[in-house]
Amino acid sequence: MSPSDFSSPIFARWRENAATDWSTYVDHAFVRGLGDGSLPEQAFLHYLVQDYIFLFHFSRAWGMAVLKAESHEELELASATVNALVNHEMPVHIEICAKAGISRAALLETEEEAENLSYTRYVIDAGLSGDFLDLIAALAPCVMGYGEIGTRLAATSAKGNPYQQWIDTYAGKDYQDVCHAVGQLIESSVRTRLGLSPDSSGRWKSLNRRFRTATRLEAGFWSMGMRGMARV
Amino acid sequence: MSPSDFSSPIFARWRENAATDWSTYVDHAFVRGLGDGSLPEQAFLHYLVQDYIFLFHFSRAWGMAVLKAESHEELELASATVNALVNHEMPVHIEICAKAGISRAALLETEEEAENLSYTRYVIDAGLSGDFLDLIAALAPCVMGYGEIGTRLAATSAKGNPYQQWIDTYAGKDYQDVCHAVGQLIESSVRTRLGLSPDSSGRWKSLNRRFRTATRLEAGFWSMGMRGMARV
Amino acid sequence: MSPSDFSSPIFARWRENAATDWSTYVDHAFVRGLGDGSLPEQAFLHYLVQDYIFLFHFSRAWGMAVLKAESHEELELASATVNALVNHEMPVHIEICAKAGISRAALLETEEEAENLSYTRYVIDAGLSGDFLDLIAALAPCVMGYGEIGTRLAATSAKGNPYQQWIDTYAGKDYQDVCHAVGQLIESSVRTRLGLSPDSSGRWKSLNRRFRTATRLEAGFWSMGMRGMARV
Amino acid sequence: MSPSDFSSPIFARWRENAATDWSTYVDHAFVRGLGDGSLPEQAFLHYLVQDYIFLFHFSRAWGMAVLKAESHEELELASATVNALVNHEMPVHIEICAKAGISRAALLETEEEAENLSYTRYVIDAGLSGDFLDLIAALAPCVMGYGEIGTRLAATSAKGNPYQQWIDTYAGKDYQDVCHAVGQLIESSVRTRLGLSPDSSGRWKSLNRRFRTATRLEAGFWSMGMRGMARV
Repeated sequence: MSPSDFSSPIFARWRENAATDWSTYVDHAFVRGLGDGSLPEQAFLHYLVQDYIFLFHFSRAWGMAVLKAESHEELELASATVNALVNHEMPVHIEICAKAGISRAALLETEEEAENLSYTRYVIDAGLSGDFLDLIAALAPCVMGYGEIGTRLAATSAKGNPYQQWIDTYAGKDYQDVCHAVGQLIESSVRTRLGLSPDSSGRWKSLNRRFRTATRLEAGFWSMGMRGMARV
Repeated sequence: MSPSDFSSPIFARWRENAATDWSTYVDHAFVRGLGDGSLPEQAFLHYLVQDYIFLFHFSRAWGMAVLKAESHEELELASATVNALVNHEMPVHIEICAKAGISRAALLETEEEAENLSYTRYVIDAGLSGDFLDLIAALAPCVMGYGEIGTRLAATSAKGNPYQQWIDTYAGKDYQDVCHAVGQLIESSVRTRLGLSPDSSGRWKSLNRRFRTATRLEAGFWSMGMRGMARV
Repeated sequence: MSPSDFSSPIFARWRENAATDWSTYVDHAFVRGLGDGSLPEQAFLHYLVQDYIFLFHFSRAWGMAVLKAESHEELELASATVNALVNHEMPVHIEICAKAGISRAALLETEEEAENLSYTRYVIDAGLSGDFLDLIAALAPCVMGYGEIGTRLAATSAKGNPYQQWIDTYAGKDYQDVCHAVGQLIESSVRTRLGLSPDSSGRWKSLNRRFRTATRLEAGFWSMGMRGMARV
Repeated sequence: MSPSDFSSPIFARWRENAATDWSTYVDHAFVRGLGDGSLPEQAFLHYLVQDYIFLFHFSRAWGMAVLKAESHEELELASATVNALVNHEMPVHIEICAKAGISRAALLETEEEAENLSYTRYVIDAGLSGDFLDLIAALAPCVMGYGEIGTRLAATSAKGNPYQQWIDTYAGKDYQDVCHAVGQLIESSVRTRLGLSPDSSGRWKSLNRRFRTATRLEAGFWSMGMRGMARV
């Protein structure tokens, strides 16, 4: 199964230029453990709790996309994404944690791990130091990588996998649609600013660097998950 | 009819401390013209077109509230507001303009007037230089002032007023609910950070200044509307 | 006398594309009044006091250039400019005001006028919504315009002009050197990001718009000065 | 030898409240290796190269302090610090690296490690989401910690320590003066905003959390150094 480009040839180029780091991310031991159900529950719960904090700051980063929007399409898509993350995805997360015996109060008091913090703050600073494109290039690995992982794991996951709900979420139509919407946003926002041959722009190299750094930090997030409940 | 405090004693204090400027804003000739229907149509259309550009940047400012949120309540309310502004209020605006013969293309090509620009950029900079409270204090005069104006004009507007739809929008339950939600956000965000006696904090004076400056700039927006279609 | 391009063909293009607004700015009645000494003292003092507040926020905008720097050259020049503005130019301003009988305390308590506020906040928001280039395109009209005005007025100012010190400051080598340094920064920062033909980039149109809007707001600043001590 | 409070009782409180993390930071194996000269040269060089990249982003963070300044004292001190970092400390760093055989080109091409990135981006985001106080609380552990380490190591370092120059830099009067200036800035900026009993403000807890998180990330920076030239 070849991975989807999510309606964005530019995203496909970024992924190709970060191929080694991308593999480390989407084919991480944590991901394989989700796929065959062998991931220790403690590792998954540790990830889940940190991911809730992650979503808080990732939503803030999409709030920054609203702040930095320069067209109506950018404004509308960023606003819808913020709302989906905060008022739909985060409540689901709270529910899953509750089922696993982790209360909302416990979630809110958890200390943010360094690998968690480094990704979201890097994304936010990309947007602060650069423009909308720097921000979107740093946001893309998370959005698209989860879409790619979901689809791949769904194709191979065996019956009774305890992580089936997680897999179904990211393999599902709703999430895949989000990936395509973000893919279209990448296409339009890049082409508006850098023209039809963005790879000939002076910006191309730095956008690829943004994407690759964010990809490396995503891989670090899985490694953090693997540590289970142990603190930094 | 005494104006509503929109569930926020703190807002009521800010308004009281900016009383002169607040009157200039909510009792502006433009507002009176809306109330008795005497406002020249050209002035209203000029205002309407500028207000569309205003909503773009005002939504960006609420995107900044998402970015600066420090609690789940702040994150949720700011996200919902962004989404309501961008994916509900702005489309209605486009529709009203279309009825008045102003195409979306024309809206997008209109040049932003200095009085328009100065308010939204002041709000955004308040958030950038200060914290969530500085931002909310600068956002409040627009949100709450329209709520107060809507209610007052609805109580006196005569039959056949050509601006009845505008009045009904801001006097209506949906908009009044937004004002109360923002009032509650002011209460919780201020009290969390500054305690139960925020007026004894060193921040109090500067928050009042933020509110008052934003109020002055809102009055300037009406004056710009009065100029009709003439350019700066 | 043809105006200097301050080492930057790109700046020259921006100025040419904003020609009408540029003339309104550099050939404003306020400027002519400085040149032939006919400007009422009250207008000059009003400008001077507002300009002190302006410098505070203009320095903040250059602090944003430090924050958004992506190369060592950008970091070094922005840092040196911040320091020159804050620790050299602002103290001189305090001194000039003191001679005119305006104490530092009075300066600090002056209310910022809308036309003052709108320019600096527009510049800061240009940097926040865009990248380093958006910021520098919005900063340029102030820096370069004063350089152009200084040189032109110095060539024609007659003996005994009460505004000779002001003219000499901006016509002088120190200030002209700043203009050339900023011109070189425009060249290098634009070419690094947009290549050797920046006018074929999708960014070109919006950078020109930034420059032109900032130029219009600078003209508004002179008009504010003309109002003398009267408040908005 | 009891550590200095650097003119700031508030800093002393923050340090005390983060005591465990502070010890991990200022008494790290890397620091002890600097103190007795046992640190492997490879570890030091790895640290040195990363520290150059760190200084770039740390200067950007101080640029943000200029952007967020709300008083002349804040503006002046932040501007002077930016200039000292960029136009004095960074050149010295380049010189030290050159002596160790690391060219400037090599410095600029080095990939930023995750532990390096996480600290500076956390600081910048603290300033973006919060106010001047959040920023200064996150900046303080780096500035003051190096001052404390320098003084302590200077008191015990034996003759012939290969890291004597490093120790002397941070134990020296110039650097200690910087620490006291920042200490005074903490006092004035906190007291202006939160009054004379800042620990009774709702902000106190979150400012302490900012300080402690930044302290933890500083300890991570030393651990990164210990890995020598190995990549993440």
